[in-house]
Amino acid sequence: MAHISIIGSGNMGQAISGLAAKGGHTVELLTSSDSDKAVTGDIVVLAVPYPKVAEVVSRRGAQLAGKVVVDITNPLDFATFDGLTVPADGSAATEIAAALPESTVVKAFNTNFAGTLVAGEVGGAPTTVLIAGDDADAKALLSGVVSAAGLRAVDAGSLKRARELESIGFLQITLAAGEKVSWTGGFAVAQ
Amino acid sequence: MAHISIIGSGNMGQAISGLAAKGGHTVELLTSSDSDKAVTGDIVVLAVPYPKVAEVVSRRGAQLAGKVVVDITNPLDFATFDGLTVPADGSAATEIAAALPESTVVKAFNTNFAGTLVAGEVGGAPTTVLIAGDDADAKALLSGVVSAAGLRAVDAGSLKRARELESIGFLQITLAAGEKVSWTGGFAVAQ
Repeated sequence: MAHISIIGSGNMGQAISGLAAKGGHTVELLTSSDSDKAVTGDIVVLAVPYPKVAEVVSRRGAQLAGKVVVDITNPLDFATFDGLTVPADGSAATEIAAALPESTVVKAFNTNFAGTLVAGEVGGAPTTVLIAGDDADAKALLSGVVSAAGLRAVDAGSLKRARELESIGFLQITLAAGEKVSWTGGFAVAQ
Repeated sequence: MAHISIIGSGNMGQAISGLAAKGGHTVELLTSSDSDKAVTGDIVVLAVPYPKVAEVVSRRGAQLAGKVVVDITNPLDFATFDGLTVPADGSAATEIAAALPESTVVKAFNTNFAGTLVAGEVGGAPTTVLIAGDDADAKALLSGVVSAAGLRAVDAGSLKRARELESIGFLQITLAAGEKVSWTGGFAVAQ
């Protein structure tokens, strides 16, 4: 079993915490008042909004060395709701990987609304977590956590594919905000 | 009822032709041997691979003036299978719109595998066609064609969102090519 730290206790942090616990893993959920507490997990989920990631990286970068760091962010430009705040040919995940060269960064959960992680299904199909990363072992470790909770994990390719995952996350949020899909719906992955 | 021309008779051209006919529309399916035949539809679907679109635009640009032109392409770099051949902050749709200033360009069908258009369902959910464009009337016209065939149509926003639709189409193709999903599966949209 893995020991998982989750930084951020919003709806996504809580949902991922619930999944990990369901699969029998030990979970440490760190809130903003725990900023002086060192992370102890082998897997660390950055469950804070993208604009807050830089602060976490700055404060905890050294603690994250050698760990699998999971980026779940959708770096929307919330002022315009018409684009992302990261370079068009890049992603939040590649920015975070560059800032944490001693960590193994994977992208995951950003295409899942919290409600579908809790429910375990979206549109009648099992919720599928798309995982991108350059390290096969890190992806397999996280896939195991996802599968143990009864969800599906799909390897979406290299960390470069985070660009596409963030496009999906962005579009899905605009569809939900525009009431074209519900916050318990969105993209499902049919096999 | 609309009169629809489909340029290209591959599996997507045939599937969209079938949908349009099912909804009671008249359909003209033009193959590569019909290059001297003028298009007569009010809606024209460019159902050729992206590298062939420039030739169609060059040959038929004047004929497409005043019409709703539907771009269904996924501009993959098939040499690397690791990116798209259009600018990172743009899309095939915006390139085509720029080349056809007298036409109303919408993006649609690029997130649907042909098999899911024919079957009408993906993973047990009705197949959903995501449509992006800057002209509400053109999107409503195409939505009507999709709905009349028993599928769901969802307005995905302005033509700028074609960038995200092309990211989805690209990722979906890499997932199918990598046997992570089947060619009759892929992304479904749950409401």
